Amino acid sequence: MKEFALKTALDNVRATCPLVHNITNYVTVNDCANALLAIGGSPIMSDEPKDVADITSICGGLVLNIGTLNKRSIKGMHVAASRAAELSHPIVLDPVGAGASTLRTQTAAELLDKYPIAVIRANMSEAKALAGGAATTRGVDVCPDDAVTEDNLAESAAFARSLAAQTGAVVAITGAIDLIANAECAYAIRNGSPVMGKITGAGCMLTCVCAAYAVANKDSLLEAMVAAVVGMGLAGEMAAARMTPQDGNGSFRTYLLDALYNLNGDTLEAGAKVEEL
Amino acid sequence: MKEFALKTALDNVRATCPLVHNITNYVTVNDCANALLAIGGSPIMSDEPKDVADITSICGGLVLNIGTLNKRSIKGMHVAASRAAELSHPIVLDPVGAGASTLRTQTAAELLDKYPIAVIRANMSEAKALAGGAATTRGVDVCPDDAVTEDNLAESAAFARSLAAQTGAVVAITGAIDLIANAECAYAIRNGSPVMGKITGAGCMLTCVCAAYAVANKDSLLEAMVAAVVGMGLAGEMAAARMTPQDGNGSFRTYLLDALYNLNGDTLEAGAKVEEL
Amino acid sequence: MKEFALKTALDNVRATCPLVHNITNYVTVNDCANALLAIGGSPIMSDEPKDVADITSICGGLVLNIGTLNKRSIKGMHVAASRAAELSHPIVLDPVGAGASTLRTQTAAELLDKYPIAVIRANMSEAKALAGGAATTRGVDVCPDDAVTEDNLAESAAFARSLAAQTGAVVAITGAIDLIANAECAYAIRNGSPVMGKITGAGCMLTCVCAAYAVANKDSLLEAMVAAVVGMGLAGEMAAARMTPQDGNGSFRTYLLDALYNLNGDTLEAGAKVEEL
Repeated sequence: MKEFALKTALDNVRATCPLVHNITNYVTVNDCANALLAIGGSPIMSDEPKDVADITSICGGLVLNIGTLNKRSIKGMHVAASRAAELSHPIVLDPVGAGASTLRTQTAAELLDKYPIAVIRANMSEAKALAGGAATTRGVDVCPDDAVTEDNLAESAAFARSLAAQTGAVVAITGAIDLIANAECAYAIRNGSPVMGKITGAGCMLTCVCAAYAVANKDSLLEAMVAAVVGMGLAGEMAAARMTPQDGNGSFRTYLLDALYNLNGDTLEAGAKVEEL
Repeated sequence: MKEFALKTALDNVRATCPLVHNITNYVTVNDCANALLAIGGSPIMSDEPKDVADITSICGGLVLNIGTLNKRSIKGMHVAASRAAELSHPIVLDPVGAGASTLRTQTAAELLDKYPIAVIRANMSEAKALAGGAATTRGVDVCPDDAVTEDNLAESAAFARSLAAQTGAVVAITGAIDLIANAECAYAIRNGSPVMGKITGAGCMLTCVCAAYAVANKDSLLEAMVAAVVGMGLAGEMAAARMTPQDGNGSFRTYLLDALYNLNGDTLEAGAKVEEL
Repeated sequence: MKEFALKTALDNVRATCPLVHNITNYVTVNDCANALLAIGGSPIMSDEPKDVADITSICGGLVLNIGTLNKRSIKGMHVAASRAAELSHPIVLDPVGAGASTLRTQTAAELLDKYPIAVIRANMSEAKALAGGAATTRGVDVCPDDAVTEDNLAESAAFARSLAAQTGAVVAITGAIDLIANAECAYAIRNGSPVMGKITGAGCMLTCVCAAYAVANKDSLLEAMVAAVVGMGLAGEMAAARMTPQDGNGSFRTYLLDALYNLNGDTLEAGAKVEEL
């Protein structure tokens, strides 16, 4: 990480205002758009198969988020991903609920199979579903408790690296401890706040933010994902620190966007809790 | 109500974190998800017919909200409700706009007809449309002014009980005065704030909150609905009390989620304005 | 403008609570609904072709916003617009992303062609795409930089007037400087804040607000659009003035709704920066 400062990754986003095409769920889509704007990017949403190729063509990157997927949006994801691949745009996959339904698991597996996914942003359960679903046999057993902890950190990091090796993607598995990995190395990030789990969309927003970082830092994808995840974690810490006794998840959601908006490179460097594993 | 404290109903939600499957409109869906998280539940949204049976199977209850309904989501509601019925999950129906369009009135009537709806959460106009639509003849004339008032309270309560008897559901008709009824008895609740009508989604959020209470309090459904409606009303009062002269419906919406988040059993008991009719 | 005070336009909205049917995108739909409520109107959302004619019939006006359009919602727009035209309801078109994709450009052009659109609310790029798309030949070249500036103001106003003449609609082109025009005259409005561009949906919200003003001020459409755009600009100024160093686009979005909610006729008159061109 010495050759590439986290600050640089954020500065590159702010300097280039990456345009990101998002095919995403209707639950958190507004927060996703505002998170992209907060971080200095620019969002476009479109899921109609007849619209997505044009939209992807004018963007720099693509988010595929399978929450509230439907037949039309799945078709839209394939059309958009195919076009994005032709244009060498980074594609970020968020396999929301993979493992929770057959349609979600299969859709995520197919997208991963057919297109050069640059980044997978998921929680550990979804990541495990992906690892199983993409292989011909179920290579990874889902643990009763999937959370990454200090106790299972080495083993979790090995899994993240193996998923990266299997898929060719940079893998960002987020939770109380976040793991960022490619096939060769992995980082643990200990930023964030438990309140992030009390709003809907913290993961979805991060996925979109990762896409903006990916577009702006194409040649340093692993480091850029570390910066994106640290930045969201710090924003969560700042938002939680701002809460009064009357505040709850409503205010936290607002404060989280505010913190992303005000995040700068110095804060990012100073607050980062990154460990190379 | 003596045998069952309102506090217990909320404590049961907080203790069990009920997972609720929501098929709902895209207008207020984000607030619905955050309201469920605020009250201590956990939301999943899915409306694709090929996805909903799997998703419902891992949840404890189901919300059917017909706002922004479409052919696909209607089919999804039937598939999900059928599965939820097999699993004896409580189903909460929110007939948004029943009476305003033929499609909405018919869809609500069909869902009510085919599945064992546990709770109907509606305003009085929608409830009257349901009563008419479900019967072979139009048994209830829609009043020019449907609002429940002190003047028409006895008659409104009688209607709520008769709709409960007709459908087998606990009926929660909300407005300036809320009515909760089963076939045998009815309660009037006088909590709440007029500002709740100046945001979109107060009703939709309440419906989802009702589902969480229903999952966590299956054997005391009537009392649980009283607790849920009192809790939302109190949250509205707390949110309104927090408003400054510069605040409007934007801040109120945030404060409402915050108040749900911070609501506890003691506040619920102390603030409840419940009258058995 | 002397015969018609801006104040009157807003007072008419507050006094009549116009019911607006919105077929709009799922990104900003919640903010659109809350903006309509804030200004004193009442929102209904419906895009299912089988539902929209009934819903439009009980409303006073219709919004067609083509962001996140799909085959079903496009069909819904045609059915709704056809019914709204029969009922002489004002239709407000927001051609989100016209020029960015063939489907969006064509859909906007078709809607403009087939129905008596009362108001077009767009940014300059979209307006130029409409002007080109509606003509048989490409009559307007899209400038590399479409922004309305003091330098190109006269020429931009001439374009706005010509689009109004071409379409029969009142044209509201918004940006750092807003232009409101019919075929005969044009106004420049210099209210607003740059932070409005850092949230998603400021334009979509304004479109819905314009529809409420149009319903309540049918006989003074041009003046009503000036009032609507001034009001949104002032709300942006008030929201920006309220921001603390910790605040970002999350809080700004909340403050913008709050400011719309608290806007009154006197503030509108006192703060308006309107120039007849």
